[in-house]
Amino acid sequence: PVPLGRHLIVEFHDAANLEDPVAIGAGLEEAARAAGAVILQTKLHNFGEEMGVTGVVLLAESHISIHTWPEHNYAAIDVFMCGDARPDLSVEHLKTVFRPGRAEVMEIARGAAISAVAPA
Amino acid sequence: PVPLGRHLIVEFHDAANLEDPVAIGAGLEEAARAAGAVILQTKLHNFGEEMGVTGVVLLAESHISIHTWPEHNYAAIDVFMCGDARPDLSVEHLKTVFRPGRAEVMEIARGAAISAVAPA
Repeated sequence: PVPLGRHLIVEFHDAANLEDPVAIGAGLEEAARAAGAVILQTKLHNFGEEMGVTGVVLLAESHISIHTWPEHNYAAIDVFMCGDARPDLSVEHLKTVFRPGRAEVMEIARGAAISAVAPA
Repeated sequence: PVPLGRHLIVEFHDAANLEDPVAIGAGLEEAARAAGAVILQTKLHNFGEEMGVTGVVLLAESHISIHTWPEHNYAAIDVFMCGDARPDLSVEHLKTVFRPGRAEVMEIARGAAISAVAPA
């Protein structure tokens, strides 16, 4: 049974490019397009120079979110997509943007119990 | 070692109130305040009458996101908070908003490896 959504929990350690909200927003949008997802809107917020950035790209297929801690060279990213979009392709693109020395990716099947009731 | 963020993955099955983006936005904001979090901005999108809603509340402490499937009485919610905010209190509030017949909550420690390097 196919879940309603694929949710990739992405941990980037020893990463770069964690401070510029404009560049980060562009990187997230490129990652959404790499997955074949449709962008609804993008919102980034930064907490001051050399501080972390927080933001989200809302998608027709769900969302990509990011929170960065430049002082730890760390980013917490979520790529949550339903339908035919390919969140794994977003993650591959995000690696080129943030160049993590170490990446951890965990996949969670969202709405899986529902799909078990009504399999695709 | 304390992680940088607590991320609660929330699955609400047999849930109600999944269609009205204004009410859902208000419910998410109440949930953020229940946790002691600071709201930066709230964005909701709905896909048409009796269709699902997608949205996010960006927080100084990270985010709350939601994607609803009214046709399955299902909502996928994420409550991701750093610092002293209490994401578990958000989830308790969200239960009063969406009244799930069954709720699954999984907690993920984000940035945990970093905290192991520099424990609080």
